[in-house]
Amino acid sequence: MKLARFTRDGETHLGRVEGDEIVDLTEAGFGTSMRAYLDRAGNDFADAREASGSCYRLSDVVLEAPVGDPQKLLALGMNYQDHIDNVKREVPPPATQTWFNKQVSCINGPSQGIEMPKVSDVLDFEGELAVIIGKRCRHVPREDALSVIAGYAVGNDVSVRDWQKRSPTFTLGKSFDTHGPFGPWITTADEVADPQDLSIRTWVNDELRQDGNTGMMIHKLVDQISYISQVFTLMPGDVLFTGTPGGVGMESGNFLKVGDVIRIAIDGLGEIQNTVIPEP
Amino acid sequence: MKLARFTRDGETHLGRVEGDEIVDLTEAGFGTSMRAYLDRAGNDFADAREASGSCYRLSDVVLEAPVGDPQKLLALGMNYQDHIDNVKREVPPPATQTWFNKQVSCINGPSQGIEMPKVSDVLDFEGELAVIIGKRCRHVPREDALSVIAGYAVGNDVSVRDWQKRSPTFTLGKSFDTHGPFGPWITTADEVADPQDLSIRTWVNDELRQDGNTGMMIHKLVDQISYISQVFTLMPGDVLFTGTPGGVGMESGNFLKVGDVIRIAIDGLGEIQNTVIPEP
Repeated sequence: MKLARFTRDGETHLGRVEGDEIVDLTEAGFGTSMRAYLDRAGNDFADAREASGSCYRLSDVVLEAPVGDPQKLLALGMNYQDHIDNVKREVPPPATQTWFNKQVSCINGPSQGIEMPKVSDVLDFEGELAVIIGKRCRHVPREDALSVIAGYAVGNDVSVRDWQKRSPTFTLGKSFDTHGPFGPWITTADEVADPQDLSIRTWVNDELRQDGNTGMMIHKLVDQISYISQVFTLMPGDVLFTGTPGGVGMESGNFLKVGDVIRIAIDGLGEIQNTVIPEP
Repeated sequence: MKLARFTRDGETHLGRVEGDEIVDLTEAGFGTSMRAYLDRAGNDFADAREASGSCYRLSDVVLEAPVGDPQKLLALGMNYQDHIDNVKREVPPPATQTWFNKQVSCINGPSQGIEMPKVSDVLDFEGELAVIIGKRCRHVPREDALSVIAGYAVGNDVSVRDWQKRSPTFTLGKSFDTHGPFGPWITTADEVADPQDLSIRTWVNDELRQDGNTGMMIHKLVDQISYISQVFTLMPGDVLFTGTPGGVGMESGNFLKVGDVIRIAIDGLGEIQNTVIPEP
């Protein structure tokens, strides 16, 4: 199943995507918060699968980020060897995962504009597999880790490289408003046979810039969830961006400019496409 | 005015603290979310000042963190020269502010237990002035920055030093569950004559360990708000921990152990007192 948030006539609704149509789940009593729905569902989506409601053509609605207000939006750096090689960074020790944070305020939809900041022009993309947590959990063993995942989406860890490098914490350079697009929807985990064998590709203006596979991750999803859940309680709706393959702009010095179109596609999860616009 | 969240008979309420009593604002129609109230109030708290409701003795209720669900919980590292000197860190360039993130899931009340993690015993405290934002804002000029502040509180940026140092991003070591206590309430900005002249002191088991003044900050509050609002929109309820003076455990190797009581007091803002407990 594909769970989405969409706007129609100025209001946000939840929906179930079927082909090129979307069934209105808000009308069917599911509320407007994906986070709240995931919390209630506990990874059992039978009610959303079976619900009926008004049906719209996808082309007649605007899709939003599938979770608008997660408690956490975390991202993992240095998780694909080719990216590490290309940026000539020291490889972190094997037991270490370089997690950082994107502020929730940067969340953006799958087709909305990415703002070129007023205070920088060193704007870059990072195509990533996004994991959406479905169960409240702590100290999750590796062998149970896949069971806490609600589903997957396509993410762009948009990065302002000069601000990112001003501080080793990354916090500001990763969190400009509009710099966390993901979507186009949550593909529930039951539809993804092997999340560690998904092709992930990024195009800028139709030029293929990243061509990786989630099988190339250094820290697999089960290791990520097991590791970070030693620290904090993961909550339904929490979003993890799981690292980017080689090919991003900072590797070649080829950064984004206003008007560029970034399209990221992952096998079976659909694609997101965002255009760089000036900060208003 | 002092705005608080408190629990009585298992339910969270908002309240106005007066001396050793608290007036129930939830009963008076203010809801249960401080973030939502701050959003409605827009830094005009006349309604909360004038509201009447049931009155309880503070000793008969449990105070919670004054904002339980902010969108952002940010913290600034390396902001007091004596702390930088003591930890022998390189001073960041003057234009750089070392912001990092504490996950919202680590928020904790002013008298609740701080958990000694199962996965570490290198637990440390950092007494800090906490700023609570009252207005949605972006690109705030220095001269307007104080006007977006709703009020102030006392914070403890609890840190797990081995996890903090595993990654330069700090993200995990700063975000263990229960490691973001603050309170005891929000003292609204009108009651604080000069937020850059407040004594801040931390005791561990009644031994004075930090004795600083917010006047010693390298980056003043107006510079902090001006700087980070270049990056993202600040929202009502967002919380900023603004750096710690010298004296924390990592400077001497004197870390916390189960049973230790950490008390932090700031002039005019009250104090918080948390005891280290084993992670359950």
